[in-house]
Amino acid sequence: MASEQYFDDFTVGQRFGSPRLVMDGDAIKRFAAEFDPQPFHLNEQAAQETIFRGLVASGWHTAALTHKLLVASEFKPAGGIIGASLEIQWPRPARPGDELHVETEVLEVRPSKSRPEQGIVKIRVTTFNQREEVLQTYVGNLVVRRRLP
Amino acid sequence: MASEQYFDDFTVGQRFGSPRLVMDGDAIKRFAAEFDPQPFHLNEQAAQETIFRGLVASGWHTAALTHKLLVASEFKPAGGIIGASLEIQWPRPARPGDELHVETEVLEVRPSKSRPEQGIVKIRVTTFNQREEVLQTYVGNLVVRRRLP
Repeated sequence: MASEQYFDDFTVGQRFGSPRLVMDGDAIKRFAAEFDPQPFHLNEQAAQETIFRGLVASGWHTAALTHKLLVASEFKPAGGIIGASLEIQWPRPARPGDELHVETEVLEVRPSKSRPEQGIVKIRVTTFNQREEVLQTYVGNLVVRRRLP
Repeated sequence: MASEQYFDDFTVGQRFGSPRLVMDGDAIKRFAAEFDPQPFHLNEQAAQETIFRGLVASGWHTAALTHKLLVASEFKPAGGIIGASLEIQWPRPARPGDELHVETEVLEVRPSKSRPEQGIVKIRVTTFNQREEVLQTYVGNLVVRRRLP
């Protein structure tokens, strides 16, 4: 793929991979201490007593790391990855040592009626662990620049 | 409110406030360097050249700080704040110096048919800045424990 993709470069069904990244226990606790200080994200022993039966990453940590992998991926819309809304699901939490990678699929491409210089690209972004279990998935719409004529 | 709320304590229309927290420029850049390294989140000057016309926080940073405020708020479901899915929107980005606060509203309460020990509480969580402009809003379903009989 080119280094940057314009609206006109996207087609339904395209898929983009990402690098891989390990979510370790210390990172889980550090993120939780700053943003999500609940027992199942902070302390292995306390987490054993919760419905998770062990330390798990905050869903917002999984989301942030997914975004890091997305920005580092082959998916490079011109002007940046700028989303206005999305529907997100966390079917299972990330656990210490999980190796995350992300797959992005183009679901829809739609020129803007009111703004001819841009279009909407609808994507599904799925986050897997090393066993190809889904940790997170979202569908969102991005605004992407058209090529200047 | 009690220190912990069970499913049976929630009613439609309840609202919960939160503390306030300033999003500063250094925090915006630090979060971006770790999770969302795009020019409009990393550098004031580069950000001037983008559609944002200035430094803005990553939506995922706003989401993470919203969660921090939610966990610190009067909304304290028994067993913790555990979400499986949600629909999120970012109508405008947070900018350096914005003071965030969060309002949580109970939209629906629904006993679980298959699991009598828990219920579903549907909430809308809205993040405002100091001018009461909406930066983020989401609707999500939480699983909350019922009181033991």
